[in-house]
Amino acid sequence: MIIVLKPKASEADAKEILAGIERLGLTPLHMPGVERVVLGALGDERVLRELNLSGHPAVESVKPILTPYKLVGRELHPHDTVVNIGEVPVGGREFAVVAGPCAVETTDQLMACAEAVKAQGARLMRGGAFKPRSSPYSFQGHGHEGLRMLKEVSGKTGLPIVTEIMDANDIDRMEEIVGAYQVGARNMQNFSLLKALGRSRKPVILKRGLAATIEEFLLAAEYILAGGNDNVILCERGIRTFETATRNTLDLNAVAYIKQRSHLPILVDPSHGTGIRELVTPLARAAAAVGADGIIVEVHHDPKLALSDGHQSLYPQEFKQLMADIKPFVEAAGRVLA
Amino acid sequence: MIIVLKPKASEADAKEILAGIERLGLTPLHMPGVERVVLGALGDERVLRELNLSGHPAVESVKPILTPYKLVGRELHPHDTVVNIGEVPVGGREFAVVAGPCAVETTDQLMACAEAVKAQGARLMRGGAFKPRSSPYSFQGHGHEGLRMLKEVSGKTGLPIVTEIMDANDIDRMEEIVGAYQVGARNMQNFSLLKALGRSRKPVILKRGLAATIEEFLLAAEYILAGGNDNVILCERGIRTFETATRNTLDLNAVAYIKQRSHLPILVDPSHGTGIRELVTPLARAAAAVGADGIIVEVHHDPKLALSDGHQSLYPQEFKQLMADIKPFVEAAGRVLA
Amino acid sequence: MIIVLKPKASEADAKEILAGIERLGLTPLHMPGVERVVLGALGDERVLRELNLSGHPAVESVKPILTPYKLVGRELHPHDTVVNIGEVPVGGREFAVVAGPCAVETTDQLMACAEAVKAQGARLMRGGAFKPRSSPYSFQGHGHEGLRMLKEVSGKTGLPIVTEIMDANDIDRMEEIVGAYQVGARNMQNFSLLKALGRSRKPVILKRGLAATIEEFLLAAEYILAGGNDNVILCERGIRTFETATRNTLDLNAVAYIKQRSHLPILVDPSHGTGIRELVTPLARAAAAVGADGIIVEVHHDPKLALSDGHQSLYPQEFKQLMADIKPFVEAAGRVLA
Amino acid sequence: MIIVLKPKASEADAKEILAGIERLGLTPLHMPGVERVVLGALGDERVLRELNLSGHPAVESVKPILTPYKLVGRELHPHDTVVNIGEVPVGGREFAVVAGPCAVETTDQLMACAEAVKAQGARLMRGGAFKPRSSPYSFQGHGHEGLRMLKEVSGKTGLPIVTEIMDANDIDRMEEIVGAYQVGARNMQNFSLLKALGRSRKPVILKRGLAATIEEFLLAAEYILAGGNDNVILCERGIRTFETATRNTLDLNAVAYIKQRSHLPILVDPSHGTGIRELVTPLARAAAAVGADGIIVEVHHDPKLALSDGHQSLYPQEFKQLMADIKPFVEAAGRVLA
Repeated sequence: MIIVLKPKASEADAKEILAGIERLGLTPLHMPGVERVVLGALGDERVLRELNLSGHPAVESVKPILTPYKLVGRELHPHDTVVNIGEVPVGGREFAVVAGPCAVETTDQLMACAEAVKAQGARLMRGGAFKPRSSPYSFQGHGHEGLRMLKEVSGKTGLPIVTEIMDANDIDRMEEIVGAYQVGARNMQNFSLLKALGRSRKPVILKRGLAATIEEFLLAAEYILAGGNDNVILCERGIRTFETATRNTLDLNAVAYIKQRSHLPILVDPSHGTGIRELVTPLARAAAAVGADGIIVEVHHDPKLALSDGHQSLYPQEFKQLMADIKPFVEAAGRVLA
Repeated sequence: MIIVLKPKASEADAKEILAGIERLGLTPLHMPGVERVVLGALGDERVLRELNLSGHPAVESVKPILTPYKLVGRELHPHDTVVNIGEVPVGGREFAVVAGPCAVETTDQLMACAEAVKAQGARLMRGGAFKPRSSPYSFQGHGHEGLRMLKEVSGKTGLPIVTEIMDANDIDRMEEIVGAYQVGARNMQNFSLLKALGRSRKPVILKRGLAATIEEFLLAAEYILAGGNDNVILCERGIRTFETATRNTLDLNAVAYIKQRSHLPILVDPSHGTGIRELVTPLARAAAAVGADGIIVEVHHDPKLALSDGHQSLYPQEFKQLMADIKPFVEAAGRVLA
Repeated sequence: MIIVLKPKASEADAKEILAGIERLGLTPLHMPGVERVVLGALGDERVLRELNLSGHPAVESVKPILTPYKLVGRELHPHDTVVNIGEVPVGGREFAVVAGPCAVETTDQLMACAEAVKAQGARLMRGGAFKPRSSPYSFQGHGHEGLRMLKEVSGKTGLPIVTEIMDANDIDRMEEIVGAYQVGARNMQNFSLLKALGRSRKPVILKRGLAATIEEFLLAAEYILAGGNDNVILCERGIRTFETATRNTLDLNAVAYIKQRSHLPILVDPSHGTGIRELVTPLARAAAAVGADGIIVEVHHDPKLALSDGHQSLYPQEFKQLMADIKPFVEAAGRVLA
Repeated sequence: MIIVLKPKASEADAKEILAGIERLGLTPLHMPGVERVVLGALGDERVLRELNLSGHPAVESVKPILTPYKLVGRELHPHDTVVNIGEVPVGGREFAVVAGPCAVETTDQLMACAEAVKAQGARLMRGGAFKPRSSPYSFQGHGHEGLRMLKEVSGKTGLPIVTEIMDANDIDRMEEIVGAYQVGARNMQNFSLLKALGRSRKPVILKRGLAATIEEFLLAAEYILAGGNDNVILCERGIRTFETATRNTLDLNAVAYIKQRSHLPILVDPSHGTGIRELVTPLARAAAAVGADGIIVEVHHDPKLALSDGHQSLYPQEFKQLMADIKPFVEAAGRVLA
């Protein structure tokens, strides 16, 4: 860690801090410069948080050298992790496709969607029973009744279910139903929920928060791994920027960056990432090309009737076209569609 | 609501949508333009969400006319709301000052901080027992033991406590201890938590999310009011932008904007809003000038020892100076310091 | 155009505005709602700017229906435009690759780079003689001497030159040298420069500004077309967001969005879009997959010696690998590499 | 400067870089850590740009210790600079008020605005003859005819003129007319223009770019000072963020931050900073409170008729109220209104 002192910091300040570094078992370094004194600490700088150097009045800035995450990083774990949702591997040679409606509405709707996406090769189904909505007056999901429908449709079609969890208290009832929990963007830093999911052994698809840096995203995953659950799949779903023509700005830089630094699989959600039906397929192609491990796409048997996100949901016919369109890009990336 | 159709939308599409609008009891409007057909719906457009028009393939865009919030708005409730935390009014003539450490560390630390801020006129105390931290390896707060310390210090000093709640399951144990719950920026859209707090009658200080628009912020407050709890205090604490010289960008535009549209009191947090000790006082002055109802400030009896946020915590002596500095601005704004 | 009046707007206000709309030859519409009066204007709303309705004290907001650009849009010009730089077409079946160093340094350097990129199939060369740099103390480019070197190398290799123009006064001297002018991100709204380039007939590669919306980007292009120069090529090069792990956030959503709404060709710059050498190839693949018409890439014969942007410049060997890597993606997109 | 090497960097890489540092006359430092090797360079690190270390393939990141600007900083120039526009000082005890219309429209309009703002105590007048507009179809200003009107009205009222320059070629004709040049946000990094203004001796009001960091803002000012013109006044006018309720997000953090680090005066533009007439006064109050040296405000004798920015222009009566409202805040900040 590099500690830059303020111009008026005294010799005594520097000595006090260097002594603290030494006390923690790190090697202290003193670098008196022309305009600033710079201090260094060699060793596992994560122990330095005990010193809280940034609170010291003589300190101008603190620059960490090491990444703050460990378990999710490639340095200790160089090989790609494959997480199985039911029997479907995510993170290996197969390009995963999770598809289905935004929200669970009725058993018929769910069944129609499930059959439509299964027919085109999707091996995992999405659908929300609990819906986080900006307004209290918007449809909030059918809750436990929705979970029941998901279970029924999963049983009939054999598709494992990916569904959002919003409350740690629901784990008990969801554990036997879900193939994978989804943590939504708004809850990416709901640390109570992350800790609870760390105690589960079910896969967790963790969506990136709207304003989360890549580092915060990986640290949120680190919470789950540190809790004991290694089955984490990341999901880039667009970040919030000044651009309003699209709902979010899909950050494919982040996918390439994370693939180089983390062993965890990462999906891309082009539906939320764009918010516009016509852009879903081109961005799904780009996701395959940039190296993502799969996509998660909203498909509704009739988006006109959708209770939420109709604007970005694909018609079954469009989903069919998407699957055909992405195939050569998936293969160019050295992967296969199931 | 204004519904703009795509250039290639058919006559039948327009008729279908207009019929739907009429069916919901609204007045439909047909405006055939040169390049686009525009439809309108007059009446309480909030019922229109049943039509999910944005999912219709012939619809290019949907533009609401009315604000999506009701209970928090001034249209139905023109006068300022005053929320009492213990016996301290927030939102009236008195400029509220909430001060204290970022985190509860020890009873001694808490007592030292409480006495320091009380001596300078703060009538409300802050301090976190549960700490949301980006990294699982950072200090997470003392939890229930921290609550016990807060209760003890509150009892001795008479200062009501403002402390963060991260998990709805903690309400039972916190209800008798807290003067006001704080919902942190990362949980602003933790709707499970908001709904649970809607069932409490204790005041809730709701912090704006890092990437929350003003509309989303007010809708998050609407969740609590819609749940039955009118005692909501908003708090602007900085948003995330491209600027990295400061920890966040304090959005004082939002304070002035919200004061004109909502009757709820609003505080400003210049500590998180800047992240730099030296900027806290100038921004506290600006907060008073822009019309905020008070401030919430981090003060630590020795920031060098702080387990979190030391960089932005004021020394007691600096807090004393802040109180002296803001006084003429508070008075220029037609308010008083307690 | 839809004009929403403030709650307290009077009958007289509405009449005054409606009369103004009629006077301009548009069809006025009066939509009295429960909580707001809404007015409409049917016809070519672009003439409405004469009314300056947003300045009217009774007006709450003004919502345009039509896009503000015309010449760059597909509505009047549905087919893809192909712009030729020298004899190299951009926007057609061939996937364009512009490659070369960030800055012109020496004739030898330039020659080495040119030969390296030509050998791998690049048919257009980039290199800056005028360099916009944040700091006045950074290398500012060799200016007219740099142009001379570009001319020499272009003559020897036959590669047309793409180089940045920063000052309209340089057009005279650059006109015979450049294959295409590049307008950098910082000058995207340098309207004096755009107008001057509208009077040229040489192709212009217009880079998106760091904080420019898609609409502003297309309007900047509209300036050049409205000035009489149809030879405009757009270039997405990343926008500025809160994320700092990468230099910019490459917005591939924008590429897909623009391809659907504009007939102009669009390139992607994965070098500036990521700022990290290791991310250039994955994002170049994604650019091909999302439907871009080509890429513009920084290649230096020895990035260690580069006077600018070394961090994101490819070694010739890496560029060779990039060309091999993108080939199947270019072909999957129905295009060919030269 | 701190240079962090990649995990796989070799001993030879480190030696090569250390030798380069030494060759430049700096003191090299070698800090071999557990997971990374860190190098340091003590001395004036600005010379290090010759090494272009960030382009070295063994380098992971480069962290400068010193600020990249010198002339605008307080370290070498601790005392506040006062810049005189005509005979009006900006940066001293007097709180400067620049007021007037967005654009010069007619001599009558300009005269009416000038008299209105002068009557309320404004001592400087703004008004644009050259208008940067997003769309080529919007009013572009009256150009040189507008300058003539400004000269006439300035002569009659005695108010020095602040007006935007968009093209360095206009300096000759503007030099004798303007009291201060304004560089607009879109041209903040138009380095050709900045260099040309560095050769003038007239004051320059430099507006912060929409997406410019504080560091880039100060470096843009550094261009002008490095060119020989010390008469630079900064202006914070709002940055672009995800928030769309207001036109921009006024960054008052930046004002306080810059006052601590730069000796240059800084104004605040609450008109562009908010884009909403009703928010101008509260933010002007906040600007005075945070320590700004003055404000620049749009006032039009009849905003309904304004050719641009009517939505954010004050009526003369509102400007009168603003001047009364800000007075106690200006005085609380230890300043006076003229």
